Amino acid sequence: MPYEFEMTRRVQFAETDMAGVMHFANYFRLIEEVEHAFYRAMGLSIMMLEGGAEIGWPRASASCEYFAPVRFEQEMRLCLRVLELGNKSLTYELDFFHDETLVARGKITKVCCRITETAFESIPIPDGIRARIREAMDKGK
Amino acid sequence: MPYEFEMTRRVQFAETDMAGVMHFANYFRLIEEVEHAFYRAMGLSIMMLEGGAEIGWPRASASCEYFAPVRFEQEMRLCLRVLELGNKSLTYELDFFHDETLVARGKITKVCCRITETAFESIPIPDGIRARIREAMDKGK
Amino acid sequence: MPYEFEMTRRVQFAETDMAGVMHFANYFRLIEEVEHAFYRAMGLSIMMLEGGAEIGWPRASASCEYFAPVRFEQEMRLCLRVLELGNKSLTYELDFFHDETLVARGKITKVCCRITETAFESIPIPDGIRARIREAMDKGK
Amino acid sequence: MPYEFEMTRRVQFAETDMAGVMHFANYFRLIEEVEHAFYRAMGLSIMMLEGGAEIGWPRASASCEYFAPVRFEQEMRLCLRVLELGNKSLTYELDFFHDETLVARGKITKVCCRITETAFESIPIPDGIRARIREAMDKGK
Repeated sequence: MPYEFEMTRRVQFAETDMAGVMHFANYFRLIEEVEHAFYRAMGLSIMMLEGGAEIGWPRASASCEYFAPVRFEQEMRLCLRVLELGNKSLTYELDFFHDETLVARGKITKVCCRITETAFESIPIPDGIRARIREAMDKGK
Repeated sequence: MPYEFEMTRRVQFAETDMAGVMHFANYFRLIEEVEHAFYRAMGLSIMMLEGGAEIGWPRASASCEYFAPVRFEQEMRLCLRVLELGNKSLTYELDFFHDETLVARGKITKVCCRITETAFESIPIPDGIRARIREAMDKGK
Repeated sequence: MPYEFEMTRRVQFAETDMAGVMHFANYFRLIEEVEHAFYRAMGLSIMMLEGGAEIGWPRASASCEYFAPVRFEQEMRLCLRVLELGNKSLTYELDFFHDETLVARGKITKVCCRITETAFESIPIPDGIRARIREAMDKGK
Repeated sequence: MPYEFEMTRRVQFAETDMAGVMHFANYFRLIEEVEHAFYRAMGLSIMMLEGGAEIGWPRASASCEYFAPVRFEQEMRLCLRVLELGNKSLTYELDFFHDETLVARGKITKVCCRITETAFESIPIPDGIRARIREAMDKGK
């Protein structure tokens, strides 16, 4: 099964820790970077206005499995796949490769929400966004 | 079932994002902060020498579920519980409370390793460390 | 000349880099943490409403000199001093001590602004905030 | 006076804060990212072995002036210039442009050091590294 989106990304010095490898929390930032680049590639942004309201995507869950460490300046291939496109939520998976070895795999489920001053209110994913993601998933088949 | 360790921690400004809430990746840094404070409370450090070798704990997996957002300057109660003390690995769970509401729950499995220049080699958890963790778990019952 | 505010803070694992010491950019986050704690100690918050408008403090400049590295779990004493309280701006200095040695010194100038959707508009520091800072400076003499 | 090195870089979501703009401490991470890309473009790495010893570059000072905020997904042009190549130290400046406006300017002075287990010992910049930097500066004229 192919990926819907790929990019390469180098480990930065500030992302390492005293053990000499990329700190485990930084993988989650990278998952998000790829997600947002995927959105831009579809002509979307993660922060959008929809019918006058601000739409955001708070995370319901995030996880990552780590198979091998990556180090400063190593280049990773980051491959995103949409696992599930629900009514209000979206789950995608990110594979981290270094030198063709799968070094980590992350997964995030996020929920489409209208953002107000004080709360996030879940809403069905707007049709325009849903159509673009569906299209990317079809291409990825 | 009681917790083995608790601390309070305020959300810092740099931990928020433009959605006005703590960024989801920062929860993983907090899980680690509590873990390390738990170690210090047991008289241990996460980076130790054991028989001349440096011992580290790379993560095998990390996950977090998010139930409600937290905002700048809100104080959280962070409660750690050891879920499993294996031969070479350790799994613990962290509950994030704000105003007595469970706002997030994280889980990390880490593996005891000897750190060399180029690799992490998994080893049985040294007896001294195991004994302290076991003791904390017994107290928590 | 005494300090207006002090706190202690331990170097966290995620704040170190592969050189084994606290990454130089993280000192700026600590300066801000102390600044915000100083505000809380005065009964203020860095994000406030004033006459219905949101007040923020974007930085005009930030600098730090590094005299000696700090390492994981080392405890620092962080000492803040207000250098200048201007009409619209505030300059303060932060001294980082470890074991009574001055290991770094940072300085930030920030500007009081009304935050709108699209811009930061500088305004005179509101009287209530100015009075509290002045009071803290007088105590520090 | 032209720049020695340029790259573009987009503001990431995790780099913003609740004020909706890139957090001021993250500019220092970007300065370093550009510095390291500059090194790679010269065929160097910031972490090198030289005569069997590990060479590192702890910062002596870092500063940044902020002229206008940058926001999520905005693309910046980051332009590096070496200001001074000393015997043991190197000072460079980084200009941040967005839409041809200078939005920030950073400066870092770093010191060439031999890294040991417990200390950083300053040393003259090795000839091979000095020659490459000199060459880049000459091209930049």
